[in-house]
Amino acid sequence: MPILNKDMTLCISLAARPSNNGTRFHNHLYGQLGLNWIYKAFAPADLAQAVAGIRGLGIRGAAVSMPYKEAVIPLVDHLAPSAAAIGSVNTIVNDQGVLTAHNTDYSAVTSLLASRGVPAGLRAAVRGSGGMAKAVVAALRDAGFLDVTVVARNGESGRALAGQYGFGWAPEYGGGAELLVNATPLGMAGGDGADRLPFTPEQVQAARVVIDVVAVPAETPLVRAARAAGKQVVTGAEIGTLQALEQFVLYTGTTPTPEQVRAAEEFMRSEQEEPDGPAAGTRAPRTQDGEAQAW
Amino acid sequence: MPILNKDMTLCISLAARPSNNGTRFHNHLYGQLGLNWIYKAFAPADLAQAVAGIRGLGIRGAAVSMPYKEAVIPLVDHLAPSAAAIGSVNTIVNDQGVLTAHNTDYSAVTSLLASRGVPAGLRAAVRGSGGMAKAVVAALRDAGFLDVTVVARNGESGRALAGQYGFGWAPEYGGGAELLVNATPLGMAGGDGADRLPFTPEQVQAARVVIDVVAVPAETPLVRAARAAGKQVVTGAEIGTLQALEQFVLYTGTTPTPEQVRAAEEFMRSEQEEPDGPAAGTRAPRTQDGEAQAW
Repeated sequence: MPILNKDMTLCISLAARPSNNGTRFHNHLYGQLGLNWIYKAFAPADLAQAVAGIRGLGIRGAAVSMPYKEAVIPLVDHLAPSAAAIGSVNTIVNDQGVLTAHNTDYSAVTSLLASRGVPAGLRAAVRGSGGMAKAVVAALRDAGFLDVTVVARNGESGRALAGQYGFGWAPEYGGGAELLVNATPLGMAGGDGADRLPFTPEQVQAARVVIDVVAVPAETPLVRAARAAGKQVVTGAEIGTLQALEQFVLYTGTTPTPEQVRAAEEFMRSEQEEPDGPAAGTRAPRTQDGEAQAW
Repeated sequence: MPILNKDMTLCISLAARPSNNGTRFHNHLYGQLGLNWIYKAFAPADLAQAVAGIRGLGIRGAAVSMPYKEAVIPLVDHLAPSAAAIGSVNTIVNDQGVLTAHNTDYSAVTSLLASRGVPAGLRAAVRGSGGMAKAVVAALRDAGFLDVTVVARNGESGRALAGQYGFGWAPEYGGGAELLVNATPLGMAGGDGADRLPFTPEQVQAARVVIDVVAVPAETPLVRAARAAGKQVVTGAEIGTLQALEQFVLYTGTTPTPEQVRAAEEFMRSEQEEPDGPAAGTRAPRTQDGEAQAW
């Protein structure tokens, strides 16, 4: 770490239960790139005043996590297409007091669907109806997927999300999908359902591609089951790193090399893997349909 | 420096032209005491929104410097006696969203007058009419000084300050004081008047005690002249360190040892002494009656 000084540019995150992911990932990249920047996670006492503080203190960027992804919308000046598409924000960029909101979860999932060549003709099922589920469902629609089912116990949010895109909703997964997406916290370290699978082994076996949004651990029970069954897999760790990297580029205007990103990721995970470390305990989810990761 | 993490408590400073003093002093003490705290200086884009940010982000404390020392008063919840006494704030403490304003310049000068045994019977002249001059004049009055002249080219602010305490005002120093106080930026590194004396060598020779509020360099031309003439001297570096230490205790509730304070002070000054370092250039004063230091 460099010696702290007055001229450092600050980026922050706003989450009810922040993790150390963003703090470790961004600060490590700042160090590698020699940027005089600093990153710090906050659990805000008041969202509107926290956003006022972004303007008032000249904070360059803010990651936005549960439960602020929708509530922050009236507090910013502009929505970038990624946030406007789904009505959910995970990133704020401050240009001289003008706040523009983005959603890098959406753009990260969009990028990964394309770069991994996941065919848009697949029948898809997305479990969950929180912020990450919104990002995934919108990304699927915009990638050309036509047959998507939102699987969520919460009928209100599940139906609303499905209806927004003309997709179907089901309270439980009934089978038949070739692309399975977990957008719940099931499988997340430190959560209630850390050892549970969002889809049964038989359902996984019957699919072709599996996407998990849970970023910690990198090898969730679902990812392990899908790999064991020889399926194509996109992990939450990959989504998490890509969305954080997009935040980094939005804030700094600088694109790190793949090696630098890998080093920052490794540094980030070196703490997550500590048994009983602080990261795990603070990431416990509230509901199974809810948000799956806090950066 | 420790690795940055999400659980760190943040303290900040608000100044139009921040120096690195507070950032270096406080962070060094946090490190020595093993506190999971972090300190960062800000030049706020908007004062009211910056203070909203203190509440909204749960920032524990904020140093307040030029030009915000009076403007911040309507934005806080309570004035501690040190700030109420002079109508000027240099410190905000945030207790669960309740902001209390203090003035540790006032209390530091008060402490030093007592601990150095400066007799209240001395005839005193204070040069300057800015925030530090207010703190000094109030401290002198409260220490029992009866004969004080405010010397300031700015007749409006000089007369107002003197009048507030029933003291006299003069546009130029006419001689006759036994206690000379410089509360202008004259002698400050990087300023217009870095090599100038606020009082002539003859005036210094005729006095008994000399106080300089300019903290950088520790040995200002006035301090050197007063020491060469064998006078009792209180330096701005001493005032600066003591007021910062009082801030540290207000924020953390922890009192460092004198050795720890000396180490933090040394660390702070190790940058100031770098020729053409960033500290000097950013501390240039606007007016000779104005504020003499930014922490």
